[in-house]
Amino acid sequence: MTAVGIDAIEIWTGKLKLDLPETFAPVKDEDPEKYTKGLGLYASSFPDSYEDIVTMGANAAHRLMERKGLTPDDIGRIDVATESAFDNSKPVSTYIAGCLEQVYDGDFHHANKGERKFACIAGTQSLDDAYNWIKAGRNRGRSALVIATDTALYARGDPGEATQGAGAVAMLISEDPSIVELSTEQGYGSADETDFLKPNQQFPSVDGKRSMQVYLARMREALEDFERAGGETHPGDYVFGPYHTPFPGMVRKAGLFAFRHTIRDTDIEEELAAEIGRQPREDDYDDREAFEEAIRGYMDDLKATDQYQEWYANTIDPTLRISREVGNWYTGSVHIARASALQYAAENDMEMTGKKLLVGSYGSGAQAEIHAETVQEGWEEELDQLSIDEQIRNRHDLTYEEYEQVHDRHNHDKRVELEDFTEPENEFVFVGRGDMDERTYEYVE
Amino acid sequence: MTAVGIDAIEIWTGKLKLDLPETFAPVKDEDPEKYTKGLGLYASSFPDSYEDIVTMGANAAHRLMERKGLTPDDIGRIDVATESAFDNSKPVSTYIAGCLEQVYDGDFHHANKGERKFACIAGTQSLDDAYNWIKAGRNRGRSALVIATDTALYARGDPGEATQGAGAVAMLISEDPSIVELSTEQGYGSADETDFLKPNQQFPSVDGKRSMQVYLARMREALEDFERAGGETHPGDYVFGPYHTPFPGMVRKAGLFAFRHTIRDTDIEEELAAEIGRQPREDDYDDREAFEEAIRGYMDDLKATDQYQEWYANTIDPTLRISREVGNWYTGSVHIARASALQYAAENDMEMTGKKLLVGSYGSGAQAEIHAETVQEGWEEELDQLSIDEQIRNRHDLTYEEYEQVHDRHNHDKRVELEDFTEPENEFVFVGRGDMDERTYEYVE
Repeated sequence: MTAVGIDAIEIWTGKLKLDLPETFAPVKDEDPEKYTKGLGLYASSFPDSYEDIVTMGANAAHRLMERKGLTPDDIGRIDVATESAFDNSKPVSTYIAGCLEQVYDGDFHHANKGERKFACIAGTQSLDDAYNWIKAGRNRGRSALVIATDTALYARGDPGEATQGAGAVAMLISEDPSIVELSTEQGYGSADETDFLKPNQQFPSVDGKRSMQVYLARMREALEDFERAGGETHPGDYVFGPYHTPFPGMVRKAGLFAFRHTIRDTDIEEELAAEIGRQPREDDYDDREAFEEAIRGYMDDLKATDQYQEWYANTIDPTLRISREVGNWYTGSVHIARASALQYAAENDMEMTGKKLLVGSYGSGAQAEIHAETVQEGWEEELDQLSIDEQIRNRHDLTYEEYEQVHDRHNHDKRVELEDFTEPENEFVFVGRGDMDERTYEYVE
Repeated sequence: MTAVGIDAIEIWTGKLKLDLPETFAPVKDEDPEKYTKGLGLYASSFPDSYEDIVTMGANAAHRLMERKGLTPDDIGRIDVATESAFDNSKPVSTYIAGCLEQVYDGDFHHANKGERKFACIAGTQSLDDAYNWIKAGRNRGRSALVIATDTALYARGDPGEATQGAGAVAMLISEDPSIVELSTEQGYGSADETDFLKPNQQFPSVDGKRSMQVYLARMREALEDFERAGGETHPGDYVFGPYHTPFPGMVRKAGLFAFRHTIRDTDIEEELAAEIGRQPREDDYDDREAFEEAIRGYMDDLKATDQYQEWYANTIDPTLRISREVGNWYTGSVHIARASALQYAAENDMEMTGKKLLVGSYGSGAQAEIHAETVQEGWEEELDQLSIDEQIRNRHDLTYEEYEQVHDRHNHDKRVELEDFTEPENEFVFVGRGDMDERTYEYVE
């Protein structure tokens, strides 16, 4: 059957930057390494006054359509994933389609538009829905636009404040894709968890410690389920492992965890046994506590091995390059991790066609999904056209006072006017509210 | 290829009733026929103090699973459609799975849970996602639970106040279904419209007149697109036409419109020509205004014909029976229209296996979707087990004062305690809020 997967990617970062070691740490009276080493973050992206989830998503989609020479008739489905919506009924995809119709002849009147919400995993769920729609034979030759767009803001003073971010990822899902084919096999780990909530509020309530435990527990379940579905999980099968990245430090933990899980009963475990012993097996312990302590000891030893360090440096670290500079983009996060790894591969002239990625998505509340992707011929030409490095460099560097103004500007409970820090050019901008309090947008040249 | 569609349906109404002619009309000093004849509504359902979108959805799903003898392992996907969510990040499906896990051995940890939002059309979008997931070969023998659940409340005094409602529809989507197979063919009509919004608010802002125009315009586009996709639209091909029913009066308009559209260039138009002439064609008119006036004249004449009246009485009127008694259920609305028609068919011993329905879903903002469904062997046994008529009869009949208390109880901006009007039995109930303001639930016997 025809391969279905990601044919093109575009990334749009919010145009403002909060420097964590230089600007945030001094005001918070913290050691800059708390952010750069601990969280693994250097900066967060924020939207300028004229940006929001609609403009970032529409601008990413517009650039993608322009680059691929697409017209509205080529698109049969527009799905937006977000946990930053500003309306409880009308989906963001209708606003984005409305923006795009300002600059194209033709319209998206026969495209199915939708919106998915499940914390940070909804982007991947939308990708899967698009894949299924094509595989089900309902696309009539058309592609799907999947847009993950978020302004990940926390209340000021919240422990999550250093992990904020804002940006959008637009992906084109097509038959015979040019970047990756998605696997039919999927694994899910999902439970009703109270780790991260937004009960009728814009900024999250977070139980940080619980959230990290839940991330690891759901990822383990998803890996096991992926194996049951017939997916391969031997570390040697995958060139990169792009995971959801709330902050790179979380992925350091997840990487070690995944490595331990996937080397169990493999040659790698046997090779390492001489150095650090075999992994503790629960049956060998009298109680759960003793077993868990043994696991922690094994993990510490494993982390120090050359094998693990090399695997981490090659397979995981390249996925974190963009994230380190932009913070958490919620639904877009795992998709910038994939792009980051493939950019790294392109820069290093790696042979990637036919090679595989093991993609781990996660959303609080909580659910993890694991699937495989096979890199397709043409991937390098696609990746070469990403402008995200340039966008990151060109952001306006906020002072702390400006950061506070920007945070208020994007607070739904406030109506703060603020001068633009950057000048929009050839892009969609937010221009105000209409009679029914609807947000309105224009294209500026 | 294997048929995929709806294998089982359960409907759960909120347990309270507001009588429109008897209770609402006198207080509003309105002629009761404004509601019964104009809107076509007799009563609205409301949730009791211990009910909300989670309990109604979980109770409908639980009853469905019990009746079908399902365990959590049989379910690979739980999607909730709602525009009444109380959290901007954590999806309602996780709460519903958490409820169900209280009463089942086993869990839903390997089911993909999600939430879709697009006004009233998200229930059908979730149905389509489930269909596509199975058709794409990703279900591993499992079924999907699709739950449409809403509390459709308006601000008191709003023109929409008489069209309120509350309830949930749970549907099981499976291979070889017992109720209907869904068509691969779909038609969409979709545009960026500002007819009905909830900008960071629970109760909608509505442009009522615009909303009705948009409903008809999007339905027309969806019908045309369905024809392009290869779908048949001759009125004789379909036994029933279940449409989204914000109130039955809207469907009266839509029915006439659909009949006119689908008889164009058919024998029916020719037969009627002697009596009322052929339909006006735009090319025969100098300007749009003259054409539209001619269309309005033709519609008035068409409405009075025996052919139309008979078609409406047989094809559309049976879809409105439940809706008349419960009001608007938003995402569930079109699904109670289907159930209403099939119940009618069962009561009248109609031969339905192999017969077709033309299903028209709609969500403001705005999008319509048209697809066909083919009734499957076993439909009658399934429909016979619905208890919705009994549930409707057993609702507590609110006084106007009680209605106001109930409305406040379910207002997210208020924290109103209120004695229960009914006694819960063998069902999930809302019991309060936890440390992170999460809503908590218990099963009571």
